[in-house]
Amino acid sequence: MSAVYATISSSLDGYVAGPDDGPKHPLGIGGERLHLWAFGGRAWRAAHGMTGGTTGPDDDAIARNLDRYGAIVMGRRMFDLGETPWGDDPPFHTPVYVVTHRAHEPIAKAGGTTFHFVTEGVERAVELARETAGEKDVQVSGGGDVVAQCLVAGLLDELEVHVAPIFLGGGARMFDRPELAGVELRPIETTGSDLVAHLRYRVVRES
Amino acid sequence: MSAVYATISSSLDGYVAGPDDGPKHPLGIGGERLHLWAFGGRAWRAAHGMTGGTTGPDDDAIARNLDRYGAIVMGRRMFDLGETPWGDDPPFHTPVYVVTHRAHEPIAKAGGTTFHFVTEGVERAVELARETAGEKDVQVSGGGDVVAQCLVAGLLDELEVHVAPIFLGGGARMFDRPELAGVELRPIETTGSDLVAHLRYRVVRES
Repeated sequence: MSAVYATISSSLDGYVAGPDDGPKHPLGIGGERLHLWAFGGRAWRAAHGMTGGTTGPDDDAIARNLDRYGAIVMGRRMFDLGETPWGDDPPFHTPVYVVTHRAHEPIAKAGGTTFHFVTEGVERAVELARETAGEKDVQVSGGGDVVAQCLVAGLLDELEVHVAPIFLGGGARMFDRPELAGVELRPIETTGSDLVAHLRYRVVRES
Repeated sequence: MSAVYATISSSLDGYVAGPDDGPKHPLGIGGERLHLWAFGGRAWRAAHGMTGGTTGPDDDAIARNLDRYGAIVMGRRMFDLGETPWGDDPPFHTPVYVVTHRAHEPIAKAGGTTFHFVTEGVERAVELARETAGEKDVQVSGGGDVVAQCLVAGLLDELEVHVAPIFLGGGARMFDRPELAGVELRPIETTGSDLVAHLRYRVVRES
């Protein structure tokens, strides 16, 4: 049985994007610093056609992730802000299910990434992604509120939070739902480098 | 030269106390789960006159902390909520400088804990604590806003955040000041257990 996992980078003050996100700052002011840890590793470079790169906990996190997913779920705002920066060959290389209120025809890009727009909620988006992923896992990429919705709806098996050693001072909160208080986690692994801390959890589901 | 460090436990959604804190729930609803990791270790038990206990990253964090501080700084709300539960022999065993707007005579308890009330702001509280601590370090214990104030004012050398694998869904935010965006951190160490993740940072000060 394949797993559904979320992976998200946060500032130490709990923001997944900085203030004033929009076309000029897709990740908000300072938000690009959330992801500095992800570049430069061997696995990331290999996925982008380059040799060399660092190894260690950050590279391990990227390698594990690149290896496991067969489909992606993301929110509409993440899609809207990302579509231009991701360019003609987005870094996903699988179908991506975008949770939205506005219906839209699928958008096929180079390299195997097709964006499908799902208007029936996160449950349905995860269901479609599961069907597509087959034996592989489903990645919930964000934004923060889509991850929180999935946690509250009991859709996640695993949660991976990458805490960057920065404060953004404002922006989009990672976890901002009172209903999260009912969600139970078990730490799987805690690792880190001088760029980030990796916190991995199993989500405890009522049986 | 002694150091000034903050040590604080947070939920994964960034709260240092749960909703509705008050006499009935000093740490807010569910807030006591923030600190479950701290009990049961060898150092904590030894400090409370007991033998045995677990060892590992959680015990290491407690042992390191108990060994280093010679004075404490905390906020008024933390004092107000804690005074009754801490009882006649509070767990600090040093002078504690409480940042407050209301002047009050010092309160001496058993076991070496005396609460001093400082009405001239966090800078002055840290200064007084430094004088008292001498060769030892100064611990800033919380609440979250006092830690944030110290970070913004450039008063901290180190920051230690203990992230419990829980969501509180509301309460007092750990870091909730836009000015924090100017504070720079360098990770020192990331460790964890199945109860908590320990994130340690050096605060980069402009020279």
